[in-house]
Amino acid sequence: MQAHPPIRSAIHLASAALVLLWTGIAAAQQPAPQELKKHETTPGGRYEPSLDVLRKEELKKPGTEEGIPLLTDEEWQIANKIYFERCAGCHGTLRKGATGKPLTTDITRERGYDYLKSFITYGSPAGMPNWGSSGELGEREVDIMARYLLNEPVAPPEWGMAQMRASWKVHVPVDKRPTKPMNKLDIDNLFSVTLRDVGKVALIDGNSYEIVKILDTGYAVHISRLSKSGRYLYTIGRDGLVNLIDLWMEEPTTVAEIKIGLEARSIESSKFEGWEDKYAIAGAYWPPHFVIMDGLTLEPLRIESTRGYTYDTEEYHPEPRVASIVASHYAPEFLVNIKETGHILLVDYSDLAALKITKIEAERFLHDGGFDSSKRYFLVAANARNRIAVVDMKERKLVKVIDSQGERPHPGRGANFVHPQYGPVWATSHLGDETITLIGTDPEGHPEYAWKVVQTLEGQGGGSLFVKTHPNSRHLYVDTPLNPEPEIASSVAVFDIDNLDAGYKVLPVGEWSGIAQGMRRVVQGEFNKQGTEIWFSVWNAKNQESALVVVDDKTLTLKKVVRLPDVITPTGKFNVANTRNDIY
Amino acid sequence: MQAHPPIRSAIHLASAALVLLWTGIAAAQQPAPQELKKHETTPGGRYEPSLDVLRKEELKKPGTEEGIPLLTDEEWQIANKIYFERCAGCHGTLRKGATGKPLTTDITRERGYDYLKSFITYGSPAGMPNWGSSGELGEREVDIMARYLLNEPVAPPEWGMAQMRASWKVHVPVDKRPTKPMNKLDIDNLFSVTLRDVGKVALIDGNSYEIVKILDTGYAVHISRLSKSGRYLYTIGRDGLVNLIDLWMEEPTTVAEIKIGLEARSIESSKFEGWEDKYAIAGAYWPPHFVIMDGLTLEPLRIESTRGYTYDTEEYHPEPRVASIVASHYAPEFLVNIKETGHILLVDYSDLAALKITKIEAERFLHDGGFDSSKRYFLVAANARNRIAVVDMKERKLVKVIDSQGERPHPGRGANFVHPQYGPVWATSHLGDETITLIGTDPEGHPEYAWKVVQTLEGQGGGSLFVKTHPNSRHLYVDTPLNPEPEIASSVAVFDIDNLDAGYKVLPVGEWSGIAQGMRRVVQGEFNKQGTEIWFSVWNAKNQESALVVVDDKTLTLKKVVRLPDVITPTGKFNVANTRNDIY
Repeated sequence: MQAHPPIRSAIHLASAALVLLWTGIAAAQQPAPQELKKHETTPGGRYEPSLDVLRKEELKKPGTEEGIPLLTDEEWQIANKIYFERCAGCHGTLRKGATGKPLTTDITRERGYDYLKSFITYGSPAGMPNWGSSGELGEREVDIMARYLLNEPVAPPEWGMAQMRASWKVHVPVDKRPTKPMNKLDIDNLFSVTLRDVGKVALIDGNSYEIVKILDTGYAVHISRLSKSGRYLYTIGRDGLVNLIDLWMEEPTTVAEIKIGLEARSIESSKFEGWEDKYAIAGAYWPPHFVIMDGLTLEPLRIESTRGYTYDTEEYHPEPRVASIVASHYAPEFLVNIKETGHILLVDYSDLAALKITKIEAERFLHDGGFDSSKRYFLVAANARNRIAVVDMKERKLVKVIDSQGERPHPGRGANFVHPQYGPVWATSHLGDETITLIGTDPEGHPEYAWKVVQTLEGQGGGSLFVKTHPNSRHLYVDTPLNPEPEIASSVAVFDIDNLDAGYKVLPVGEWSGIAQGMRRVVQGEFNKQGTEIWFSVWNAKNQESALVVVDDKTLTLKKVVRLPDVITPTGKFNVANTRNDIY
Repeated sequence: MQAHPPIRSAIHLASAALVLLWTGIAAAQQPAPQELKKHETTPGGRYEPSLDVLRKEELKKPGTEEGIPLLTDEEWQIANKIYFERCAGCHGTLRKGATGKPLTTDITRERGYDYLKSFITYGSPAGMPNWGSSGELGEREVDIMARYLLNEPVAPPEWGMAQMRASWKVHVPVDKRPTKPMNKLDIDNLFSVTLRDVGKVALIDGNSYEIVKILDTGYAVHISRLSKSGRYLYTIGRDGLVNLIDLWMEEPTTVAEIKIGLEARSIESSKFEGWEDKYAIAGAYWPPHFVIMDGLTLEPLRIESTRGYTYDTEEYHPEPRVASIVASHYAPEFLVNIKETGHILLVDYSDLAALKITKIEAERFLHDGGFDSSKRYFLVAANARNRIAVVDMKERKLVKVIDSQGERPHPGRGANFVHPQYGPVWATSHLGDETITLIGTDPEGHPEYAWKVVQTLEGQGGGSLFVKTHPNSRHLYVDTPLNPEPEIASSVAVFDIDNLDAGYKVLPVGEWSGIAQGMRRVVQGEFNKQGTEIWFSVWNAKNQESALVVVDDKTLTLKKVVRLPDVITPTGKFNVANTRNDIY
C-alpha cells in the first residue's frame, strides 16, 4: 500500500466515464465487431434480448425519405443492436438526449454524414467516446451508425399489461413454498453477485466464500434487492426481466419471473410496517413506466406511465426513464426517480385502485441515491447540473437541492457515517473528477451542518462509481473503475473516517487478485453483514479472468480471493442483511 | 302544448347523435364544401385556428409509402381540416378511436380505398354519419378523406410551456383592475351565451334580456365557468383559447388570455375555502394534458400530461383526452376526468411544486358530469359502457359505478331535485334513447336508494343533451336537439317533479321563437338566478336566424324571445349565480 497524491482527471475522462456508466461499461469490454454474431442469442439463454423484440416489431424501413441514406436490413439490425448497447443509455431510445446530446434528425441531418462519421470515430472532449479510434467499432460499423443516425429513430414497441402477463411465469406457487427455511444457509450473509455478461447472478456464502448457486436471470442484472423479511431476492436485468428468488427453499430457486419492459434498471420491495414483502415495483427505461407487482408472485397489478413534462421547462418528454427506486420506511410508499423530467415520485401503494402519487419537482437528470443513516431522508444525484436532491420521507417533501461541488455525482446508494466534527454525513463520489463530497444529514443533532457540503475529499481521480462504509467500520472506500489509468482503475482508495485530512491509502485490489490480464477494474465494495470485511469485484472482459477480492476492514489487508471459472464478469454485489436493511 | 307518447329512436339515431355531440353539431351545420375557403381564418378573428398550426408544423408528406395513395398539398390541407372538424372528436387525433372506431392504417389499409369511400359516403347503423349521401361532404371530399385515411396519421405538434407562454397575454394587469364593481349590472344574473360559430360569447342581462357585451373568444366556446366570487368569467374555445373576463370593470372586459393546447373542452376555477379565485385549470384534447394557471392572470404554472395506461386493460394510450373538470368544495382539489383511460384524477393544487394526484380507476370513456345537491358527490357519465361513476369528494374515493339503464348517458352536469318518494336524486338523459334516469344521492337520509337507479322516465326520444331543473323549480326539462325529427328537436319535454308518472308536457320552443327556417334545434335549458325562468337556445346554422327563448317556470308559458342579429348560433348558456355555486 502506498499513499497517492490526488490525480485530477482530464475533462475527457470525466465525460467519457459518464458515457460508460455502470451498465455501459460492458460495451467497452465487448469483443471485437467481427464477433458480434455470437451474441445474438441472450446470455441468459431463455429470453430474447430486447433487441430481438425491436427487430420483430420494426415498422419503418430506413432511407425512405429523399436524400437520406439507405440501410440494408442487415445493416439496420446491426445499427439497432449497436445503438441499444452503446448509445441508448446516454442518448435515449428516441434519441432525445439526456446524459448524451440529442441525436434527432433535425440535428444529425444538419451536421451531415461526414461530421457524424468523424464524431463517432474520434469522440469529443465533451464526453463522446472515440468508438472508432479506440477500435471498439470497426470502419463498417461507424459508417452504418452515421447513416443510421440520419434516419428517423424508431420507437420500440409498447409493453403493456398484455405483454407483461404473457411473459409472467410462476414456477413455484406460494402454497408450494416452504413455511420455514429449508436450508442451513446463513441467509443474511449471502451475497448476490451480478455476473454481468452471462446474464446470471451467483449467490455466494459470505462466511465460506463458496458459491451456493448460480441462477439464470436477465441480461446484465443492474441490481439485486431483498424483501424486507430477507427471504426473497429480486433481480432486474437490463432487458427488463425480473427474477424472484426464494432463499428459504432447499436451494435458492427462481420461483417467479416477468419481463416488465424492453430496457430497465430498477426494482424494489415494499418495506413499510404491515406491508413487508407484499409488493414489488420495477422501473423501466422503455417503455417509460413502472409496474407494481405482487411481491410473492410478481403478478403485474398496476402500470403507471412516466411520460410527461420536464419539471423546469415543462416541455413534453416522450421518454422519461425510471432511474432508481427505494421503499419508504415512513409510509406505504415507493420513491421513484424519473431521470429526464427531474421529478421524484412518491407512489402510495396502499390503494392500487386509486394510486396516489406526489410528484416532487427536483432536478434533472435523476440517477442513483440512498437514504441517510436514519432512513428518514433520501439523497439522489441529479447529474445534469451536479446536484443532490434531498427528500424528507416523513414530511413527504423536498428538503433541498444541493450543489455537489464535484463533476457529476455518482453515489450509488452513498455511504453514511458519523463524522468526528460534523456528525452524521452522507458521502458521494463523482464520475467526472476526484471529489468525494460529504453532506450533513442530521438536522436535529447538527442543524448547522444539515444539507450542506461540510467537507470535500480528494480521491485517486475521476471515474468513480461507488463509495462504501458500514456502521461497524471506520473506513470509507472509494472505487475508480472508470479511470483510464490502469493503476487507478484497479485499485481502491481508503480513508480513515477519524482522520480524513490524512488523505487516503491505496489498496491494490487488482494486484491482490492475482490476475495478470486485462484492466482489472475494481468496482463496488460491499460489506458482509457484520461489517468486518469488504468485497470488491475485479472485473475484466468476458473472455478474461475476473475475481472477487475480500479485504479485512480492520487491517486493510487481503483476506480472500475468489477465483472460480463460473465467476464471469462480476459487477454488483448485494449482501442480504445490508440490502434488506438499507445499510450503506 | 301537447303530451307525446315516448318515441323510441332508431339505433342509427342513437349512434349518429353520439357522433355529433355537443361540439360536433356545427360540423353538420357547416356550409357546403365549396365555401370551405371562407372559413380558413379564425372565427374569433385574432387567433389562428388549431388547423393552421398543424399545417405549419406538418412533418410528413402523405403517400411516401409504397402502394399508399398520394395527396397533393392542397388535398392534405383539406383533409386535415375536415378530419379535425368532423372526425377527430370521435375517432381521436391519432385515430386510435374512442366513441368512434379506430382508424389506424393497419385497419384502413386492410379495408381499402373502396370500402372507406363507401363508408364515408353512406355511414353505418353503428353510428357513422352518412357524410356523403347527406350532402355534408362532396364527392371530391369523400375521395380525399378515403385516401387520407390510408396514410399514417400525423401527430399534431406539442404545446408545452414555451408555446403557452408565447400565447399568454395580460391585457389588464391585476393592479389596474377595479377593487369594487364599476358597473350597475346584476352580475349574478348575467348569462354568458356561447355564440358558437362566430367564436364569441354574448353577456346577456338576465333581468332586461339585453346584450351587455359581445366578447371575442376562442372558436366554439365549449363552456363558461365562473370564479367562486362570481367576478371572473372563464371561457374555453374548442381551439384551446382561454379568455378571462372581469365582470367588475365598467364594461366586462377580457383581461387575460392564453392558448393551452390545440383542441380543448374544459375549464374550471378553484373553489375550496381559502383558495377561491386563486387558480384556474384547463384541460386539453391535444396535447393530452391539463394546465393549472394563476386564476387572476392565466399565467400557466404547471402542466401535467395525461398520456398513460387505460384503467382496465392497462394498455398505453397516446391520447387520453381531458373530458371535464370540476372544483372540489371539500378539499383544495380539482377533479379531472380522463376520457380514454377511464381515470378520475383528484388533483391537489395546494402545492404545485409537489403536485399530488389520486388516480381513481372508474370507467371509459368519461364525459360530462356534475355534483349531487350536497356537492359532496360527483357523478360522471362513462359512455363506452352506459355507466355513471360516483366519486365521494370528501373521502376522496370511488363510491360506485352504476348502469345508467339507457343508451349513452349524457348528463351535461345533470339535474338535482328532491323526489317525492326517493328523496334527493340526480338525473341524466341519454343520447342514444329516450331514457331519463334518476339516481338516489342521499346515503344518509335515504340509504336504501343511494347510488341506485330509483326510476327511469321516458322522454320524447333520443338525441338529448341536457336535463335541467333548479332548487326553486318543481319541473324537470329535457331537451332533444339531436333527434332527427324536427318536431322533437325543436321542442322540450317537461316533467312535473311531484307527478312524474303523469308523463311530460311538450313545450314547442322552436315554434315560440317565431323563426320559421332551419331545424330550430332547442338546446340546453339554463335557469335565471332566482329559478323562476328557464332559457333555451333555438339554434340554427350560421346563415340562418337563431334565438333565445325564455320560459316562465311556474306557468310553462313563453315569457320572452330574444331575436337579435348579433345572437348567432347560440348554444351553451351559463348563468353566473348558478354556475359559480354549482346549482343544477
